[in-house]
Amino acid sequence: MSKMKTAITPTREEDYPEWYQQVVKSADLAEHSPVRGCMVIKPWGYGIWENIQRVLNDKIKKTGHKNAYFPLFVPLSFLEKEAQHVEGFAKECAVVTHHRLEKKDGKLVPAEDSKLEEPLVVRPTSEMIIGEMFSKWIESYRDLPLLINQWANIVRWEMRTRLFLRTTEFLWQEGHTAHQTEAEAEAEVFKMLNVYKDFMEKYLAIPVILGKKTEDEKFPGAVDTYCFEAMMQDKKAIQGGTSHYLGQNFSKSSDIKFSDEDGKIKYVYTTSWGVTTRLIGAIVMVHSDDDGLILPPKIAPTQIVILPVIHKEETRKEIFSICEKLKDDLENIKYHGLNMVVDIDTKDIRGGEKKWSWIKKGVPIIVEIGLKDIQNDSVFFLRRDNFEKKSLKTNEFLTNIVPILDDMQTKLFEKAKKQLEDNTKNIDNLDDFVKFFTPKNDKEIHGGFALSHYCLNDKEMEKVKKDLSVTVRCLPLNQDTKEGECIFCKKKTKHKAIFAKAY
Amino acid sequence: MSKMKTAITPTREEDYPEWYQQVVKSADLAEHSPVRGCMVIKPWGYGIWENIQRVLNDKIKKTGHKNAYFPLFVPLSFLEKEAQHVEGFAKECAVVTHHRLEKKDGKLVPAEDSKLEEPLVVRPTSEMIIGEMFSKWIESYRDLPLLINQWANIVRWEMRTRLFLRTTEFLWQEGHTAHQTEAEAEAEVFKMLNVYKDFMEKYLAIPVILGKKTEDEKFPGAVDTYCFEAMMQDKKAIQGGTSHYLGQNFSKSSDIKFSDEDGKIKYVYTTSWGVTTRLIGAIVMVHSDDDGLILPPKIAPTQIVILPVIHKEETRKEIFSICEKLKDDLENIKYHGLNMVVDIDTKDIRGGEKKWSWIKKGVPIIVEIGLKDIQNDSVFFLRRDNFEKKSLKTNEFLTNIVPILDDMQTKLFEKAKKQLEDNTKNIDNLDDFVKFFTPKNDKEIHGGFALSHYCLNDKEMEKVKKDLSVTVRCLPLNQDTKEGECIFCKKKTKHKAIFAKAY
Repeated sequence: MSKMKTAITPTREEDYPEWYQQVVKSADLAEHSPVRGCMVIKPWGYGIWENIQRVLNDKIKKTGHKNAYFPLFVPLSFLEKEAQHVEGFAKECAVVTHHRLEKKDGKLVPAEDSKLEEPLVVRPTSEMIIGEMFSKWIESYRDLPLLINQWANIVRWEMRTRLFLRTTEFLWQEGHTAHQTEAEAEAEVFKMLNVYKDFMEKYLAIPVILGKKTEDEKFPGAVDTYCFEAMMQDKKAIQGGTSHYLGQNFSKSSDIKFSDEDGKIKYVYTTSWGVTTRLIGAIVMVHSDDDGLILPPKIAPTQIVILPVIHKEETRKEIFSICEKLKDDLENIKYHGLNMVVDIDTKDIRGGEKKWSWIKKGVPIIVEIGLKDIQNDSVFFLRRDNFEKKSLKTNEFLTNIVPILDDMQTKLFEKAKKQLEDNTKNIDNLDDFVKFFTPKNDKEIHGGFALSHYCLNDKEMEKVKKDLSVTVRCLPLNQDTKEGECIFCKKKTKHKAIFAKAY
Repeated sequence: MSKMKTAITPTREEDYPEWYQQVVKSADLAEHSPVRGCMVIKPWGYGIWENIQRVLNDKIKKTGHKNAYFPLFVPLSFLEKEAQHVEGFAKECAVVTHHRLEKKDGKLVPAEDSKLEEPLVVRPTSEMIIGEMFSKWIESYRDLPLLINQWANIVRWEMRTRLFLRTTEFLWQEGHTAHQTEAEAEAEVFKMLNVYKDFMEKYLAIPVILGKKTEDEKFPGAVDTYCFEAMMQDKKAIQGGTSHYLGQNFSKSSDIKFSDEDGKIKYVYTTSWGVTTRLIGAIVMVHSDDDGLILPPKIAPTQIVILPVIHKEETRKEIFSICEKLKDDLENIKYHGLNMVVDIDTKDIRGGEKKWSWIKKGVPIIVEIGLKDIQNDSVFFLRRDNFEKKSLKTNEFLTNIVPILDDMQTKLFEKAKKQLEDNTKNIDNLDDFVKFFTPKNDKEIHGGFALSHYCLNDKEMEKVKKDLSVTVRCLPLNQDTKEGECIFCKKKTKHKAIFAKAY
């Protein structure tokens, strides 16, 4: 498609971070609220989250978990129970200290006599409050495994925020499970990691690398943290979500014990795992182009929008009724187990402006219906990912729409996979490593993901971390374990790690 | 069904409030958390909420509303903008004053240097924060109506709490809409009130009275508040939800203006409406009996539970496989647009205990499958609402299950309707009114709902309110407007009100 300028300014090449903000804005996904660090998720963005919820919720239930809801607040004394956990989470959080307001000199202030004896923290994560309940619910091995999930809002005070990627309040899903044995708990950790991978690749069309975090990067209080990392178009990494093996650390601090089949009292083994609204940021950054958002059809709030094209007022009624008929026909087509979602945009604005608003919103297919199309019994449509325009007989369009959407879903995944593969390099000496991550120009463009031998001693990479803003993302799972020299200290090691700049 | 004692102690007659707590507990719906006033909603209770969400969300979307998400926190200055609103909501709420914790003398305390310049309130409702966003989003009449809904958690500090009925944190849905004209906004208020009524009656099997609140009882800041009231088995009222006509009160305080078709700048007319997890308390109190919870099948998390009855170990495999087959067959039956939900309970506990646990949980149909049933190709089942036990040929059971569930749904509604009608009395003098509401014994049993002429001056009923704990619930809609004397002051009035004791 040839045109003078792109719909988004700046382009990805000109200024990637600003391009991201502009795509989010022009797709009407979310915006900053007047509450510092908190965002408003607008209907089009929330529609994506609802689809993420629907699909993932189904997978979480099919693997035997049940949803429940736990309090928003965590008493300070609970946080203090797990030493590492408190270090990690007590730092930046919203603290509730009073439970009433009163007028003083004409202004509302927290009432002195309503001061709480023990302040409450707005949950930065729910291990401690859920652990407390688990300790009451679990008595015997018969109560295990206990497999619980919660959809909730979370608050972690952030100084520098970016819509979806880092906000003070965000939405997430947090699984919390308790098991009889270490082996069973570990199996759970990998089961959910693979549920996430399947979801990321099949629905969000984002290929991921599964891996283990190093000691420095793991969840405070966990024995091991596993994660999945994705590559954005600027070759930076995003951690898409995590699955933690908590061993008995939390069962000991929350006193979650059970009487086992052998009659002995033991501590359970626990796990936790979650993904957040951050995934919406990843969708934007992996798939979109300089004309705005591109959405994988399986996660788009609306697969198809129909725009009536009315040149003469007297044709309006006929064109509208044909649009309604087409919508009905499309919505009767099954698309991956659900009905297709179709909108007709009857807003009273110029046709070009209207079409571009949907291009920027990333709706997969834009249909335009005018008098000529009706006379030809045909449908004229634009495919968002490759801007292909086509006219098909109505019947043909109805027969082909699912294959077209599936092709789009596949192509988006393949493109993202190629991006990941083309920009992940085996690097085995520090000079190449530094060169790989040194920006070629002022746009911060660099090599991508480096896969290098690593001794796991995070002190060795502190200088690199500082100078190049590169962090160790994870130790990929299922790697071949040929021995090599640590890229930093030359010590022999069997481990290889993914290094990258990250959001 | 004859048995020595009831599964729930005390019975409804012995102590209704305590019976309620015990039904909630033995059905495993929810429990108090260690966080004062906050509850934990357990999987069976949350499953009811998920069904409420699913059905209501669908109705809310079908009436043109879109979901979005707004911040958990409201800055104090926002609350202050609407004078009446602040009076109503600034009183008991959670106030965030700091954003970091630090160790001091070995204990975690809010860090002094993290004190917020402006404290934040955890949302007790979202008019002010959503109004602020609406004022940015609305420019022209083309942006109207703006129809938004949010599913969220809410905090209102409560001193005396009861699971579901009154808790410091609860879950709800809040609709917020902005309109071009008064007439359109008022139509929205009634549209949603009727959506609620339809939902209450068809899904929760709870008949409701639609009405208008008096000045004293309306939402702080509203022009008019409409509500729906239901009668519990102890003849007390519960307000199931509300729909507010806010006029221009909030658009003026939040500065929500638009340029109208005539080119003039005007304030929009707004509405808000919501229902909460309190509805689960109403389900419990309307339908349950002295053996525990009874759930309307259309809202039950599981319609049918299958209990394998194993007398000899060697029959286990065969019985389990027949149970699986029955579950599959049942789950292929459509039940009001969805697949039937069926559980098999394979827990390793005694059969009687297991069966009673499901009776107390209120699952509509309990099936027991033993060797004899397999030999006869029959299904033995218990219907929870009337304890009817029956054995049907498997085919017959599969053919009849939907009609059986529908009959149960209808019967529950009819029973609740009779309860409401039998205990709603026209009362036209104060003596009868006082007698009606005076407990007959120490169990607080009284007459029910009184429908009486009322002058609308709430001062007139203050003594009654105090002496009898009776409040005016609402002025029922669509009442005949024959004139009569106010039950309190004898002034002539056309209004009749529903008076009741209430939760």
